Amino acid sequence: MTTPLDPLMLKEVPADLPVPDSVFEERRQRLRERLDARGLRVLLVTKPVDVFYLTGFRGSAGALLLGPRQSRLWVDPRYTLQAREQSRGVAVIETREALSRALGRWLRKARPRSVGYQDNHATCAELAALRRETGRNRAIRWRPVGPLLDDLRVVKDGWEIERIRQAGRLTVEVFEQVLPLVRPGACEADLAAELEYRMKRAGAEGPAFDTIVASGPRAAWPHARASSRRLGRGELVILDLGAILSGYAADMTRTIYLGVPTGRARRLYDAVAAAQQETVEGLRAGLSGGEADAVARQALARRGLDRYFTHSTGHGVGLEVHERPRLGRGDSTPLAAGAVVTVEPGVYVEGYGGVRIEDTVLVTASGAEVLTPAPKDSWFTG
Amino acid sequence: MTTPLDPLMLKEVPADLPVPDSVFEERRQRLRERLDARGLRVLLVTKPVDVFYLTGFRGSAGALLLGPRQSRLWVDPRYTLQAREQSRGVAVIETREALSRALGRWLRKARPRSVGYQDNHATCAELAALRRETGRNRAIRWRPVGPLLDDLRVVKDGWEIERIRQAGRLTVEVFEQVLPLVRPGACEADLAAELEYRMKRAGAEGPAFDTIVASGPRAAWPHARASSRRLGRGELVILDLGAILSGYAADMTRTIYLGVPTGRARRLYDAVAAAQQETVEGLRAGLSGGEADAVARQALARRGLDRYFTHSTGHGVGLEVHERPRLGRGDSTPLAAGAVVTVEPGVYVEGYGGVRIEDTVLVTASGAEVLTPAPKDSWFTG
Repeated sequence: MTTPLDPLMLKEVPADLPVPDSVFEERRQRLRERLDARGLRVLLVTKPVDVFYLTGFRGSAGALLLGPRQSRLWVDPRYTLQAREQSRGVAVIETREALSRALGRWLRKARPRSVGYQDNHATCAELAALRRETGRNRAIRWRPVGPLLDDLRVVKDGWEIERIRQAGRLTVEVFEQVLPLVRPGACEADLAAELEYRMKRAGAEGPAFDTIVASGPRAAWPHARASSRRLGRGELVILDLGAILSGYAADMTRTIYLGVPTGRARRLYDAVAAAQQETVEGLRAGLSGGEADAVARQALARRGLDRYFTHSTGHGVGLEVHERPRLGRGDSTPLAAGAVVTVEPGVYVEGYGGVRIEDTVLVTASGAEVLTPAPKDSWFTG
Repeated sequence: MTTPLDPLMLKEVPADLPVPDSVFEERRQRLRERLDARGLRVLLVTKPVDVFYLTGFRGSAGALLLGPRQSRLWVDPRYTLQAREQSRGVAVIETREALSRALGRWLRKARPRSVGYQDNHATCAELAALRRETGRNRAIRWRPVGPLLDDLRVVKDGWEIERIRQAGRLTVEVFEQVLPLVRPGACEADLAAELEYRMKRAGAEGPAFDTIVASGPRAAWPHARASSRRLGRGELVILDLGAILSGYAADMTRTIYLGVPTGRARRLYDAVAAAQQETVEGLRAGLSGGEADAVARQALARRGLDRYFTHSTGHGVGLEVHERPRLGRGDSTPLAAGAVVTVEPGVYVEGYGGVRIEDTVLVTASGAEVLTPAPKDSWFTG
């Protein structure tokens, strides 16, 4: 099943997929409507994924000032050419000064009464610098907008859904390729390397996060990294992986038992598998994140395992691998059709191990579509 | 030179290297001395690499409150086991609430007059939440400490230098393995995948940053990612890569010309190579970052190329791939012995391409030691 790769035969990867220009203008328009509703005309966007979402520019530094009609993107000289090539419908301004200084100069002239800023991303020092640069007397009112952009990104358009679907398919493909290597004696870090390498060779930009391969007692750490530990017979192994494609992530977890499962391993596995399936089957637009979480939690409670479920049931996936909405206790906002979320119940038993099963799913009006359809019945190997 | 890898023969990787316990207590003690000098007794540390530096805990979320004698680390249930296993000399506190709430409750009881916080890392929203939780009336004074931790991390101890030296060696080894694949027809993204895969197979935790493979006109983008573009004959190709080992990064760039170099390519290359060599040779403790930068800039100016050098000459490397100190215009702080920095002049010509040559070097009292000693004479291939 696994064919060794010849490094000299570099394979075909899909061309980088450009987003249609109109998409960015539509997004900026939707954002302007939300700003209007708050009485804001100018917004400073500094979080790179949001700058990408609104302009197409994928550099790691830059400041976008979205105005009622025009938008301006300040970048340092490292990014000038890239910003001019990638950005759509915004004026690119190169500056050799600190971004806060260049922005400050512009704002002192333009004199908007208030400017929104991303308080969930901007650091205290960045805001202090902007306040300094824009002056004390005829001071601009800086207004925190909280998760405004995160909320805007919750509902994916058709183009985005297709990207995540592709990222999901690629993740599944790579998992299936590497599954035969998940056996006693294999090293966690080597398996992670193999998964990530195959993602890239299959055309992904890379892994969406550090691939988790956690075996034996390490499987009881929900966020363990892959270590130099070798897998042993009779152990549970959690593989948590996801590819990024054209900026969009997928996120998937499978758990493998190495050997003929013991009663304990099977009990844990079956409970999590049932909780995961029930939650996916119950998902639909209009259900709240808290209600979805309760489905998983109650399924585990019926088997006496809910106290081992130490995290929330899921999270949004898109340009970030963890984004809105959250599927956890107390999340009362109804899920929107077009949201893409993970469903990932797990149980973690200190000193023994753990089981987590996760899919990335698209929420629809009537249900949910699984975007990471890898088999779950291949969970034990000889 | 390149041997195909058999994915079933997973190779030996070095064991994860534990830091001696005493190292963390020494670091906290040095930090306490700096806090004392500012009249601060309590510091909130929220930046993950700094939490790791001070405690050994490598999770991606957690809040460390460093007190005059004791230190406490709050984590959510995902990280409890990991924090107990990895952290040294601090009390681990699990909380299911938001960290700001748990911290706030503790601070309302302990009532320190002032608490330092990392304003370069903490977001505006995080500070606002802490202020809310700690109350308005008997309010705690929150004092920004700026780059206090960054400055503490500038001088590397012997243990850290050895880690970076190993990361550098591994980076060189992987570069040499992949060099024969850098030829016309190869795809940028595939080469990046190959480099990163071999890093991990050689025992690295992963790449310290997205490996850059930028060919032809894309080499004029200093921070281009690897794309699906295929390398062409007669093009310059920039490869910028670095491994992470036990948390520590290396950073190295080489530029390859595909074919018999034209006069133009050779002129650019020789100028950058000379600028890089002169800067490394001139480096020593006591020189300022600005002076080091001037050496590189003047070397390019003598060849009429300084206007194509659009970024600074270097940056510190350690737990972060970009950290203090900076080697750029106006950096007047003298470099300390034990600092590890990059020296990476480059020239970027829009529409044509670029050349960058970079090494990670250790600053010593009398000079500098190159930690990424990969050949620079292999820069053209048949």
